[in-house]
Amino acid sequence: MPYVYQHPHPAVTVDVVIFTVRNDELKVLLIKRALEPYNGCWALPGGFVGIDESLQAAARRELEEETGVDAAYLEQLYTFGEPDRDPRERVISVAYYALMPSDALQIKAASDAEGVGWFSIDELPDLAFDHPGILDTALQRLSAKVDYSTIALQLMPEEFSMPELRQLYELIKREEIDARNFSKRILALDVIEPTGNVRREGAHRPAKLFRVKDRDKVEVIK
Amino acid sequence: MPYVYQHPHPAVTVDVVIFTVRNDELKVLLIKRALEPYNGCWALPGGFVGIDESLQAAARRELEEETGVDAAYLEQLYTFGEPDRDPRERVISVAYYALMPSDALQIKAASDAEGVGWFSIDELPDLAFDHPGILDTALQRLSAKVDYSTIALQLMPEEFSMPELRQLYELIKREEIDARNFSKRILALDVIEPTGNVRREGAHRPAKLFRVKDRDKVEVIK
Repeated sequence: MPYVYQHPHPAVTVDVVIFTVRNDELKVLLIKRALEPYNGCWALPGGFVGIDESLQAAARRELEEETGVDAAYLEQLYTFGEPDRDPRERVISVAYYALMPSDALQIKAASDAEGVGWFSIDELPDLAFDHPGILDTALQRLSAKVDYSTIALQLMPEEFSMPELRQLYELIKREEIDARNFSKRILALDVIEPTGNVRREGAHRPAKLFRVKDRDKVEVIK
Repeated sequence: MPYVYQHPHPAVTVDVVIFTVRNDELKVLLIKRALEPYNGCWALPGGFVGIDESLQAAARRELEEETGVDAAYLEQLYTFGEPDRDPRERVISVAYYALMPSDALQIKAASDAEGVGWFSIDELPDLAFDHPGILDTALQRLSAKVDYSTIALQLMPEEFSMPELRQLYELIKREEIDARNFSKRILALDVIEPTGNVRREGAHRPAKLFRVKDRDKVEVIK
């Protein structure tokens, strides 16, 4: 059934920047488009917001469809609405970003078809629409937010060592971080705890393993 | 001319939370609605986004229409899209917030008709739609952002004293701030400079006056 309005209405979509860590790299999920415009081009996963669906619900639906995971951290990023950003019609996109624990990726195998892939943020293909700007905005938000919140913990697996956590911060901040200060600062926040396990690798001293105390909670650091 | 779509499209509006400081209070601009729904109720100024208009342009247009001022600091806040937030049809609102220097208010006199008013954030009337939540979000953003940026300077008049600037921070943070530390911290940022003038009031020592060095620049504080 066609829908008739007194004045023109824009289409509204959600696009989701889904981050994870894999093979010591910060990665983002991209979809290969199979339709015009930008046919064959990589793009952020996204789609139209249902007329009875909240924005958050639409974003979570996209996340689940693409990754099979519903437990990721999801936050509204910014709304992109330049009049010419889609050649078909006026489309306003409410962008979200999601953080997926690196060990949640096995769940994704089912939907990991051709045309879907995790890309290192250092080796991105050309992206459709204004998606390069959306991705940049997400990277900036993430980098700013790790300084004043515990958001980065959302990317960690069930069990992790202190050097692994520091490496994640280094990936996001794109700078080296002093190991001793980092450890002291994180422990002082009282948001992770030792699991009692250790990991032995090669000739290194066994590394104490930690877990996040409350995964549903992202704390703001004063 | 009516507009026909294959699937339903939402309406998209902008709503603008316009802050200023007046009589030592943090105030917000509200409009009295003269139409259903919420007829006679106070609401944030806002309106539909033109089909060829960027979101930022729509927000700036609303700001100018309501205040006669186009020089205010304007930033996208958050997009509100609960399906039932407007009883008429699905309306998604991209909210912005604006900071107006307290001495820009004289310009507004022209549009300062009945049904438009500045309200102290401590004495707000009932608000229409989900506008209480939008206003809360804006207050939280402002309070968080003054901690890591020089955004608060956007609210100051051409010339101001250090106690006046500190009082603004106290209004936003809702806590007392130590005068000596505050002065040291602000001066270290190198974003304000003495004008060479002083203000004499009552029996107090004359207060040195300052101005913002570059009003177009909001600095992020590391």
